Amino acid sequence: MKLHTYPTAPNPRRVHLYLAEKGLDVPCETVDIMTRQNRTPEFMAKRNPLGGLPVLELDDGSHIAESVAICRYFEVLHPEPPLFGTSAEEQGRIEMWSRRIELNVARPVGMVWVHGSPFTKGVVGKQLPEAAEQNRGIVKSAYRFLDESLAQSGGFIAGDAFSIADILALTTIDFAAGLVEIPLDPELRELNAWHERVSKRPSVQQHPAAAPR
Amino acid sequence: MKLHTYPTAPNPRRVHLYLAEKGLDVPCETVDIMTRQNRTPEFMAKRNPLGGLPVLELDDGSHIAESVAICRYFEVLHPEPPLFGTSAEEQGRIEMWSRRIELNVARPVGMVWVHGSPFTKGVVGKQLPEAAEQNRGIVKSAYRFLDESLAQSGGFIAGDAFSIADILALTTIDFAAGLVEIPLDPELRELNAWHERVSKRPSVQQHPAAAPR
Repeated sequence: MKLHTYPTAPNPRRVHLYLAEKGLDVPCETVDIMTRQNRTPEFMAKRNPLGGLPVLELDDGSHIAESVAICRYFEVLHPEPPLFGTSAEEQGRIEMWSRRIELNVARPVGMVWVHGSPFTKGVVGKQLPEAAEQNRGIVKSAYRFLDESLAQSGGFIAGDAFSIADILALTTIDFAAGLVEIPLDPELRELNAWHERVSKRPSVQQHPAAAPR
Repeated sequence: MKLHTYPTAPNPRRVHLYLAEKGLDVPCETVDIMTRQNRTPEFMAKRNPLGGLPVLELDDGSHIAESVAICRYFEVLHPEPPLFGTSAEEQGRIEMWSRRIELNVARPVGMVWVHGSPFTKGVVGKQLPEAAEQNRGIVKSAYRFLDESLAQSGGFIAGDAFSIADILALTTIDFAAGLVEIPLDPELRELNAWHERVSKRPSVQQHPAAAPR
């Protein structure tokens, strides 16, 4: 088994945080996204036809791509401590929050990145500055919603326990604040307090976000 | 327990297909999205602060929103027949394909819808026709990828068994072909054959997509 990864990029970082929270040690091979080694015909033919990282290579030579799918794979093999919940209600609630982060925060952050950054020219064809601005507003609105929700939750995104939803939120917010230049507004007190608290976890200390360029 | 829903809309339809595949009967209450009953202050305060459908109301008065989260809740309570896989590898592979459909197909279809339809004026503020066109291209490219992948799979999106990934793909493709006016290109033979095959399932016959306007 081998994890093909680029540890400081936001999607691979999710898996590294997850594995650290679980205490799992998985052999890794770094694929240099800066020189687009994940977009070579060889990589796409052998590892992931869509070229994304991370990708988990299994012992039978097959591959599982997509950060959350890789975490889900390990969750089945190593259920403790649960990061996707245990009861039906917990699993449903964590999935709800994971989707809210993925679809309402991570996607619009990605849109600001691909439409608004000088580093991503060509990724989506023509960059649309208006799309970047519109998505920046969607992210800010989603941050306010997270802030209000955290005021009523048990201290974590999906309730009273750290979960995959916190990992998705943290990696997204750190990426947004760093490379995408969408800082956390200091007025969002609950969200800032959560961010500070979660950032002190050993897993996060071991796997910091990419430094801003 | 009660499912707040609007059965022919693409996200609620996922849950209705899922429940039919499982043979589960859940009390339903229709919320009229045409008159925006899911966006009233009452609905948002009581059911889902984001106003989306479907929402599952549990017996303790709490709610789970997000189509796939609701399915996941039922999967824990009623694991047979499995629609999220059983082994770690199956669960990981189905999650991978569910994410590919959600992020690379359903999202761009949604973008074409909100930026390009006369029915969605105001949903995202200013409509950006260039964003609609760009996303139309992304959808077409994702359809080609699905077509190529189906040629190598066991007949379903995530392998040799019908799964939640097929439900996500079918509801998205039907919505795209109907209201969003992105038809399936007849040249995509594998994808069309899959669509025809899956559409014959009793669950799909019971829960058809909305008719085009």
